[in-house]
Amino acid sequence: MTYQKESFEDLIERMQSYLTDKKYVDARETIVDLEPVDIAYIMETLPEDTIPLVFRLLPKELAAEVFVELDSDSQEDLIKGFSKSELKEVIDELYLDDVVDIIEEMPATVVKRILSTADADTRKDINNILQYPESSTGSIMTTEYIDLKTYMTVEDALKKIRRVGQDMETINVMYITDPARHLLGYVSIRTVLVSDDEDKMEDIMDTAVISASTLDDQEETARKFEKYDFLTMPVVDKENRLVGIVTIDDALDVLVEETTEDIERMAAISPSYKPYLNTGILETVKSRIPWLLLLMVSATFTGQIISSFEESLAAVTVLTAYIPMLMDTGGNCGSQASVTVIRGISLDEITLKDLFKVIWKEIRVAVIVGAILAMCNFAKLMLVDKMLFHNPITIQVALVICLTLVFTVFAAKLVGCSLPILAKALGFDPAVMASPFITTIVDAISLLIYFQFAKILLRI
Amino acid sequence: MTYQKESFEDLIERMQSYLTDKKYVDARETIVDLEPVDIAYIMETLPEDTIPLVFRLLPKELAAEVFVELDSDSQEDLIKGFSKSELKEVIDELYLDDVVDIIEEMPATVVKRILSTADADTRKDINNILQYPESSTGSIMTTEYIDLKTYMTVEDALKKIRRVGQDMETINVMYITDPARHLLGYVSIRTVLVSDDEDKMEDIMDTAVISASTLDDQEETARKFEKYDFLTMPVVDKENRLVGIVTIDDALDVLVEETTEDIERMAAISPSYKPYLNTGILETVKSRIPWLLLLMVSATFTGQIISSFEESLAAVTVLTAYIPMLMDTGGNCGSQASVTVIRGISLDEITLKDLFKVIWKEIRVAVIVGAILAMCNFAKLMLVDKMLFHNPITIQVALVICLTLVFTVFAAKLVGCSLPILAKALGFDPAVMASPFITTIVDAISLLIYFQFAKILLRI
Repeated sequence: MTYQKESFEDLIERMQSYLTDKKYVDARETIVDLEPVDIAYIMETLPEDTIPLVFRLLPKELAAEVFVELDSDSQEDLIKGFSKSELKEVIDELYLDDVVDIIEEMPATVVKRILSTADADTRKDINNILQYPESSTGSIMTTEYIDLKTYMTVEDALKKIRRVGQDMETINVMYITDPARHLLGYVSIRTVLVSDDEDKMEDIMDTAVISASTLDDQEETARKFEKYDFLTMPVVDKENRLVGIVTIDDALDVLVEETTEDIERMAAISPSYKPYLNTGILETVKSRIPWLLLLMVSATFTGQIISSFEESLAAVTVLTAYIPMLMDTGGNCGSQASVTVIRGISLDEITLKDLFKVIWKEIRVAVIVGAILAMCNFAKLMLVDKMLFHNPITIQVALVICLTLVFTVFAAKLVGCSLPILAKALGFDPAVMASPFITTIVDAISLLIYFQFAKILLRI
Repeated sequence: MTYQKESFEDLIERMQSYLTDKKYVDARETIVDLEPVDIAYIMETLPEDTIPLVFRLLPKELAAEVFVELDSDSQEDLIKGFSKSELKEVIDELYLDDVVDIIEEMPATVVKRILSTADADTRKDINNILQYPESSTGSIMTTEYIDLKTYMTVEDALKKIRRVGQDMETINVMYITDPARHLLGYVSIRTVLVSDDEDKMEDIMDTAVISASTLDDQEETARKFEKYDFLTMPVVDKENRLVGIVTIDDALDVLVEETTEDIERMAAISPSYKPYLNTGILETVKSRIPWLLLLMVSATFTGQIISSFEESLAAVTVLTAYIPMLMDTGGNCGSQASVTVIRGISLDEITLKDLFKVIWKEIRVAVIVGAILAMCNFAKLMLVDKMLFHNPITIQVALVICLTLVFTVFAAKLVGCSLPILAKALGFDPAVMASPFITTIVDAISLLIYFQFAKILLRI
């Protein structure tokens, strides 16, 4: 039994011809066994006006699952075309956290329509989740979990699981609460199944529960899934009352999104939260231009440094040729240090208290790296640049370049490793302190060192 | 019931004093309710010689779970101190994929000891998994899953789950195989529980199974967990026989590791697969120096370009001052494009067939970005640099700088977006084509453009 014997291209072509020939049963058969995300992909690749048609071919439950995977434009179009009862059917089938995700992307009129079809309880739950800030744990939780009571036996629990299990986001873990909904413990479906029928929840539950608060940052919560290998995590309010759960699929989405955000910030891009090919030209420009402008203007300092040493450069013109090498090497050294540290901060491996440990490590790395680079560069200057290319390089010039290299590497590693940690301590995103930003600082430092050494050693 | 009422610092201090006072019961009570990964952290923070002591305080099952979370040095020390029966107890408690992970980190003598304590079947399974290449799906799978037969009823299935469930890595999903172990379908514990006792597996199983092959790249498999929201995935051999399963916790580890690898490669670092603070100085140097050397040497070209235009620079010395700005802006534009595209490739959003779509998008972005940057820069040159700083800038010089900027941005975006896709198509890691590499190329291009414009417009 292999999934997807033919390529998506073939599938889509086949769907296309079935739809044109109005062979709807064949069309349905073609996709009904696929995963929802794949069906959504196929629907979005087919002509836009066939989306409602294909959607209505799907069995109710699958249709809802596919709906979640469609992009928000297609979702909006579908909702606008739904009859009231159709919309209600879809919303009823969806998990609550998915409804909330969809609502967050829709214009107000559509939101109103969705809420008007939901029953009072659901509407209350939805509004509840919607009130949490965008990056909070509350905003990614769902309220569809199974809660059990301390006095319930395994038999009672299994009866409840069998009764309500179908509508819950997960039945892998159940939570035990007291009458005031305070979280007391949890029990996995495995523990329930391997226990005796008459065992009570209070005896088999695990009381050392790690929970998140509704207002915890969602990235922090997602990292806990990674650290503790959780499949679900309970979310509690300030009084430790259970208000929802987060499941690993949502935590994983958060991790991927936050990592993309980090990577984009490191490359001086404002995060867009959209797949590259779905982002409009102007949106892409908007996410890139502010940083470019800022960095371009700050390069003024570097330019001014060069201007003020114009005479030295005119005296020993060959010095100009090594400015790019010094700047690039400094930039690369700085970004190596900063990116490593930024990733370490993201993964919770590095905190403020490690600042001096990190600096001390980078100092030692910088000394070794600087020495190796300087020696190799000295050899290259004398053997290749002087003897092969006949550049006018004296021992003194080579010394200026290589000494600058050593100090540039040192400064770059130091700035690169400490700025992200300090940024984090001050409440900024450390990822902003990556390559481009640090390059600009290191450029200025390395030029100042360069001209200082040139003045001293070449007496210009 | 809150987990961890006191900070880890306090916990560790308390443990320390209990251990000094030989209050072992108190010591055990202090940590026994914590998560294994937290206990491991505390043990590793305590003096090294107390690790075996604390380990022996833990209940058998928990001890095994903690063992998995310890770093490999501590694991090795513990194994060396274990009696044969102690070692057997720990190994028997561990899940098979964890045993394999541990074995992969141990020296040969320790591996031999571990294998000698395992029974024949386990040894065979371990050797089986060990034979798969390091980055293959086979190497992260476990063989401890529940398989069911088509003719089994829900009652049979539940009986089997209750009997063997405790020793399996997961009971959330079971797989249905034929007598030759061919994979036929899967069934979730939820489906089993909400079905009737006499329902047969063949009637309730889902036959559209997405499986991985043992030799599939583990990152590819891990991405499928993300795409399809799986908790487990079956692994089959070439004949579609079920040989193991991968669980989401291992997939998540792979995703985090591969992302760190990507980020490191993008910053011109060879991946180390170790937390920053656990990596030795020389290891860190080794992971950074090759790229620095390569990039330093390749900056020779940039230097040579400057050397060959020395006379132009001597004629209009102010040109030198804008070299860093042009180089940095080019580098930043290139890295914005390349990093976005590299991330898109990692997330499977961009493939080779999108090459022209990507190039066309970047061309349009480049035109807008280039125009904005050039205009702002022109204003800055005339208002700030000329009028405020009295730099000798004529309209012609400003034109040379701004035109170069436009073309540099264009070249940078084009090189930045296309190299990663081409690298991927040629079987290289696209992440290597990030900022540092592209900066070096863009530097050379922007200088050539600069001097060309200078020659034409300034007639030098």
